[in-house]
Amino acid sequence: MTIDSQTEEQAIRDMIATWMRASLAGDHETVLSLMAEDALFMLPGQQPFGKEAFRAAAQRQQNFRIEGKSDIQEIQVLGDWAYMRNYLEVTMLPLDGSKPIRRSGHTLSILRKGIDGKWRLSRDANLMTSPA
Amino acid sequence: MTIDSQTEEQAIRDMIATWMRASLAGDHETVLSLMAEDALFMLPGQQPFGKEAFRAAAQRQQNFRIEGKSDIQEIQVLGDWAYMRNYLEVTMLPLDGSKPIRRSGHTLSILRKGIDGKWRLSRDANLMTSPA
Repeated sequence: MTIDSQTEEQAIRDMIATWMRASLAGDHETVLSLMAEDALFMLPGQQPFGKEAFRAAAQRQQNFRIEGKSDIQEIQVLGDWAYMRNYLEVTMLPLDGSKPIRRSGHTLSILRKGIDGKWRLSRDANLMTSPA
Repeated sequence: MTIDSQTEEQAIRDMIATWMRASLAGDHETVLSLMAEDALFMLPGQQPFGKEAFRAAAQRQQNFRIEGKSDIQEIQVLGDWAYMRNYLEVTMLPLDGSKPIRRSGHTLSILRKGIDGKWRLSRDANLMTSPA
């Protein structure tokens, strides 16, 4: 691993830390700023969806407090592109006190460095499930 | 898209066609030859697994005839790496005549070109589900 790819890997780790912090704080605009305009999200049993559908889904989460953590398993920087494997654990706590929803699992993501030098999420396959 | 990346994209399409053909024919050795030694497969609700676990799972499918098709949605070539989105439909027909198992869904894969110039699967997130 070169110094450059170490620096880029750290930039990606910082981006993911910002994403997690903003996501847990309900700061959707910051999260949306960390994805490419043409980002695509892939979930089991669904059609891939883009940034506007992500925004709508985030707004539907306003009745939850969200806890969670990210454990990055692998980052490979390939020039202005990178892929990342991550392990996520998320708990959504309904503000009305009803039962929390727990989900955990792995993700495989493609990231791209913009002409502004910032890394953004481009493709994201999310394999999270609820415990049986 | 350059001529080079068109050529590489076609090489990847050919590789996936070979994979599908071999997979449907039960030719597991050909399928295994199309993945990197350190390949990782990711499925919902499971830990990622490697080539040996893939081999064992393939051998457990010997009591099925498998039909299926692949509909590649996107290939992006990034030098010696590429990512691909695919849509798969698979039907597993038990040889004893019991009920077929249908699964369909999207995949997000990372491919890598070896020093022999051949593309192989490196990371694969498989979001296929059975119909509800």
